Amino acid sequence: MKRTKIKDALNATAPMDEITIKGWVRSKRDNKGFSFVALNDGSCLSTIQAIVDHTPEIEEALTRVGTGASVAITGELVESPGKGQRWEVRGKALEVIGEADQETFPLQKKRHSDEFLRSIAHLRPRTNKYSAMFRMRSALAQAVHKYFAEKDFFYIHTPIITGSDCEGAGEMFRVTSLEAGSQLPPEEDFFGKPSQLTVSGQLSAEMFSLSLGDVYTFGPTFRAENSNTPRHVAEFWMIEPEIVFSDLSDDMDLGEDMIKYLITHMLDNCAEDVELFAKWVDKGLMPTLENILKEPFKRLPYTEAIDILKKTKKEFEYPVEWGMDLQTEHERFLCEEKFKRPVYVYDYPKTIKPFYMRMNDDDKTVAAMDCLVPRIGELIGGSQREERLDVLVARMDEMGLDKEDYWWYLDSRKYGTAPHAGFGMGFERMLMLVTGVSNIRDVMPFPRTPKSLDF
Amino acid sequence: MKRTKIKDALNATAPMDEITIKGWVRSKRDNKGFSFVALNDGSCLSTIQAIVDHTPEIEEALTRVGTGASVAITGELVESPGKGQRWEVRGKALEVIGEADQETFPLQKKRHSDEFLRSIAHLRPRTNKYSAMFRMRSALAQAVHKYFAEKDFFYIHTPIITGSDCEGAGEMFRVTSLEAGSQLPPEEDFFGKPSQLTVSGQLSAEMFSLSLGDVYTFGPTFRAENSNTPRHVAEFWMIEPEIVFSDLSDDMDLGEDMIKYLITHMLDNCAEDVELFAKWVDKGLMPTLENILKEPFKRLPYTEAIDILKKTKKEFEYPVEWGMDLQTEHERFLCEEKFKRPVYVYDYPKTIKPFYMRMNDDDKTVAAMDCLVPRIGELIGGSQREERLDVLVARMDEMGLDKEDYWWYLDSRKYGTAPHAGFGMGFERMLMLVTGVSNIRDVMPFPRTPKSLDF
Repeated sequence: MKRTKIKDALNATAPMDEITIKGWVRSKRDNKGFSFVALNDGSCLSTIQAIVDHTPEIEEALTRVGTGASVAITGELVESPGKGQRWEVRGKALEVIGEADQETFPLQKKRHSDEFLRSIAHLRPRTNKYSAMFRMRSALAQAVHKYFAEKDFFYIHTPIITGSDCEGAGEMFRVTSLEAGSQLPPEEDFFGKPSQLTVSGQLSAEMFSLSLGDVYTFGPTFRAENSNTPRHVAEFWMIEPEIVFSDLSDDMDLGEDMIKYLITHMLDNCAEDVELFAKWVDKGLMPTLENILKEPFKRLPYTEAIDILKKTKKEFEYPVEWGMDLQTEHERFLCEEKFKRPVYVYDYPKTIKPFYMRMNDDDKTVAAMDCLVPRIGELIGGSQREERLDVLVARMDEMGLDKEDYWWYLDSRKYGTAPHAGFGMGFERMLMLVTGVSNIRDVMPFPRTPKSLDF
Repeated sequence: MKRTKIKDALNATAPMDEITIKGWVRSKRDNKGFSFVALNDGSCLSTIQAIVDHTPEIEEALTRVGTGASVAITGELVESPGKGQRWEVRGKALEVIGEADQETFPLQKKRHSDEFLRSIAHLRPRTNKYSAMFRMRSALAQAVHKYFAEKDFFYIHTPIITGSDCEGAGEMFRVTSLEAGSQLPPEEDFFGKPSQLTVSGQLSAEMFSLSLGDVYTFGPTFRAENSNTPRHVAEFWMIEPEIVFSDLSDDMDLGEDMIKYLITHMLDNCAEDVELFAKWVDKGLMPTLENILKEPFKRLPYTEAIDILKKTKKEFEYPVEWGMDLQTEHERFLCEEKFKRPVYVYDYPKTIKPFYMRMNDDDKTVAAMDCLVPRIGELIGGSQREERLDVLVARMDEMGLDKEDYWWYLDSRKYGTAPHAGFGMGFERMLMLVTGVSNIRDVMPFPRTPKSLDF
């Protein structure tokens, strides 16, 4: 018989004469004449309780049922006399689909450390915490697409393998079809020249923004940084909208609107899973999220931010001076202590920013912005792009970039250029924000970090 | 003034006293006292016509306006006396945002070859055909997520960098942070062992199916195949659903439902763009799509397919015999000539299929299926997975696979295993189906092929 998902069974509006549920056993309690079996199938956090009366067949089957086994139970869906759930199943038949050896099954005990669960990343989605995590990850990703679809943005798949380095910085993985240690020149390699994994789809997305209008990318990006911190992984997903006939202020509007939309969506659609994190992972989760929704984000020019940081009595590890990049301690001070809400810092010194950001009239700062949020720090980094060909070329010369490599990018400023802006949002950081989880390894199915490539 | 997207202007329900439209000039026609300017902003295929009366300022501005320039026009939205469009703009002000040098702008002439347009892939979305293409690509991708979200499937981001080879076949790109030609051993590389770009997220997705239920991936996959054909690229996007407590028949149901949903969605939501392809690219596009929607797909065991191919009078280049993989000519004969609709061929010889497919009782075939569609050939390839630990291990031994490499995969069969199935759909092939475009390079923003890594 076709299974009913447990989520749908628990949301039933009337009893059912016959229903089949299938899932993994979370617990079993034997009594005289009957047993309780709590079943979860991943469709929602809750388990459904089945009461199965003992028959000789069922008694035999139950000897093979332990935590982690997969079973099918067919019976009646009836109102539950117990607290906490409305429906339960009066089981008439129980089939063991797959046993789980109770001696070796690693998820026997109730609580496990996140470190241990990382070592069995293939099984951790069978726990409450990680099934909730990956349902929320899915809901958040789907909500990103829903948001942009509703706003008539076009989704662009920018290339993963690239010959250009968007940020002008190193730390890229090489991609090759040559054997390890091969002395053949790049001309002999698959693409006939050196190729890398992308760090950003921005430059490609700009081409589409300057033809289709409002666009976005949502795909994997890579950093070959040898950092072993709770905030760094080698492979992560990034969302990069790009909007045309738009400036930095429009860009900040979009980021704020999107963050608020995504948080609202998660609170409305993943309430049960969010509650788990608010209860067990971060007691401050709900107030943090509600606070972000409540007020407009603060918008603060970089120069004013530096003044504030200099004047405060708080002592920082990194001394504050104009021209520096903000450190996490500064970012957290601004949004957690000073303004107690998300803060856009904008108009950064040109010396610490890439070539494509639009030069301001002061010739000292560029139209860049970072959105800082409590506990996460930088959630969004973006800029208005330099649309003026002469200014862009001068800046590339100043930074020693080879214009030949960017011929197509420069073309877009030669033919019908237009003001445009965009940003990158680290998808995992957004997920950390809405779950309260502090280690990026715990919001990804199979995280990739230095010296770690299991699964 | 805030711009109104041209799509929204053309869909207006009443005249507007003031409107600003911004976009790229498709054509300009000067008359005595006024000029016609046709503007496109990528939001839809149609241009909007603006009539601007000459004032000294506007006359000066118009001297700088050529095809490809970006301009802003502010004026009144009024009913159009002309045929074909309901609204036009009576321009009162015209601002040149970015000029386009008429001597060098490559999109002057009306028709260009696809080959030429590939060489300016950064500008081709400014043409009617490619703006339609990339709007449809976006709509199709968003529809994939919408489809699965509506069916309560969870979206899983399976890893792009991997240490395992899903298909058990070569042709993978290597990923490394070592310098080209480095003689250092893999232990010194970023992950401490050899790493590659994924060819499929299936094995990872199975882990999530066996915990969350119905899941899917939608991400980039890679092949380092040195094939220069209209059907091969090195980087493409794949959709891989995986369903639990399900068999091959459920898998075929899902594939058919999804294909029909996606086609219906495109016909309903991208009518104007689809029409362009039906008119200029493939006259048979609409009948092909309508035919796919009309009837249930044919389901044909491989052994019967071989019989049919053997009995037909048609001569094939590749001789037909049981045990062979079907060639494109065979696939096309079955769906285009014999059955005249999509055909699922299933239960393939085990000798031509990977280790993870479920063994049938005959011990000669596995529960694999391919969905063949007119003009495209294989659109979907899938299977029921081998959920029985002993059968799976025997098969891996038979094929000489190292079980140590798959310890986590085997774990999923040790603890609460369950029947499950899934398939991979090449996203670009689906897009080729709904546009009628025959070269995969023309359905991707910046295609990656041997010796080609521009943009």
